[in-house]
Amino acid sequence: MSDELFGCIEAGGTKFVAGVLRRDRTILRTERIATGEPGPTLAATLRFFEEARAEWGGFDAFGIASFGPVAVDRASPDWGRILRTPKPGWSGTDLVTPFAEAFSCPVGLDTDVGAAILAEHEWGAARGAGVATYVTVGTGIGGGLLVDGRVVHGTRHPEMGHMLPRRHPDDRDYAGSCPFHGDCLEGLASGPAIAARWGTSLSSLAPDHVAHGIVAFYLAQLVVAQRALLSPERMVFGGGVMATPGLLDRVWAEVRTMETGYFGDQPPETLVVPPGLGTEAGLMGALALALDAGRR
Amino acid sequence: MSDELFGCIEAGGTKFVAGVLRRDRTILRTERIATGEPGPTLAATLRFFEEARAEWGGFDAFGIASFGPVAVDRASPDWGRILRTPKPGWSGTDLVTPFAEAFSCPVGLDTDVGAAILAEHEWGAARGAGVATYVTVGTGIGGGLLVDGRVVHGTRHPEMGHMLPRRHPDDRDYAGSCPFHGDCLEGLASGPAIAARWGTSLSSLAPDHVAHGIVAFYLAQLVVAQRALLSPERMVFGGGVMATPGLLDRVWAEVRTMETGYFGDQPPETLVVPPGLGTEAGLMGALALALDAGRR
Repeated sequence: MSDELFGCIEAGGTKFVAGVLRRDRTILRTERIATGEPGPTLAATLRFFEEARAEWGGFDAFGIASFGPVAVDRASPDWGRILRTPKPGWSGTDLVTPFAEAFSCPVGLDTDVGAAILAEHEWGAARGAGVATYVTVGTGIGGGLLVDGRVVHGTRHPEMGHMLPRRHPDDRDYAGSCPFHGDCLEGLASGPAIAARWGTSLSSLAPDHVAHGIVAFYLAQLVVAQRALLSPERMVFGGGVMATPGLLDRVWAEVRTMETGYFGDQPPETLVVPPGLGTEAGLMGALALALDAGRR
Repeated sequence: MSDELFGCIEAGGTKFVAGVLRRDRTILRTERIATGEPGPTLAATLRFFEEARAEWGGFDAFGIASFGPVAVDRASPDWGRILRTPKPGWSGTDLVTPFAEAFSCPVGLDTDVGAAILAEHEWGAARGAGVATYVTVGTGIGGGLLVDGRVVHGTRHPEMGHMLPRRHPDDRDYAGSCPFHGDCLEGLASGPAIAARWGTSLSSLAPDHVAHGIVAFYLAQLVVAQRALLSPERMVFGGGVMATPGLLDRVWAEVRTMETGYFGDQPPETLVVPPGLGTEAGLMGALALALDAGRR
């Protein structure tokens, strides 16, 4: 068991992180590969794992935590392919077959946030939760949902960033950055939406800048929507924007105001929490997918 | 098998419907009991089933589909009790023990909408759906969520009516009827909220009355929120308000406008559908809970 080898890929929109891991989460080697055209990006990733195989032997399974939208339903003929995306060249790219063929082993695949909630449930901040979500607030906003230990996909997979929040009274003029919906949550509270309004990142703005309250007001609405629709036992909020000092406190305060205690006595501080796996969450998510694929 | 007997209770805020059913959904007898104080209401319900037992013999299981909030977690010490409710006298009422003791058989319990999605998944409009919801729009607005054949509860159970929609531009003045949130979805689009603004039911207003578009605008936001957070394969919309002619068509049209095709190609008409079980959905939901309890 201890010499099992897992190929783990965090396939992001700006970088791929490839890692060779053991079952106990030991990382033997990692490499970052800038996300360019699909062909060269996948070729560089394959090369990394071929070199690892030469050193440590064959892989038992691969796990791929991918940017979305991506076809995650194994029963679909599109399984493993990136779906229609504005990212040049990537629509229709098959992420799974190159690794399944090159290394003749099972491959697990999910969205980055689906993988993250699986890993947080296995090892991190969502341990023991029957219904749990992972939300990332960064370049985009996305959310993964886990029920009874399994990532929920439905027709495709959740796209939590595209819910439609109420506008903050001091933020009526900005049209929003989402090419599909304008002022959906991602169009109002993601990193690019913050930069478009205030010219920099949230963490670069003074703590008394109005942006903090506005962003917290929008993110709190995703918490309230999850409470109303899902009643989660744990909501893990991560991503670059969430790392802004004080932001989570502001979200808790907004949630309290909006909910008025209706959904029960549990304080938001115990329900909405930061990730337990920190910066390694991406690779750990891919490992969770690889372990899951190996069990099938 | 064919002479198994199931006690089914639709415990509503205005009436209890009690029914004696066979496994094949044959209804042997039903009775409506107006919901008064808990003591007399439960006594009348017990009497109905005692008379049925005298005629057909003992019960194999009971199923109770209850108004909420209600404790549905079997592991909780409060299991089977109505939680804090504005309904006089009902907070803390134990719905399960009287029937479990009087008839010495398993009892299944869920919310009315939890039971409804179970029944719609078993026999109705949500057959085959891995992720499915049932939404009722009537005296209140509630929603039940089913994943992989099981009703999802989380910390308590979903309270979909208490999501916070965007206000319609022609409906800015009304403060909303919800005692907790004012203008949450239930506070804007439930039967009482409609009556408070326009003095009557939606179906009594002329088809070109502005109310139809406003209510559809709010209900469509629950569809979009479910798509974003859950990606359901089927959303069943029932209840008295939904029976308004033309309302579902207006909801489909609003959903199309709001989503701009982002969540995939499936038309709203195939995703958001009326109930398949009609007026018997309540008792069928209770039967589904009884069958489930009998299997435990």
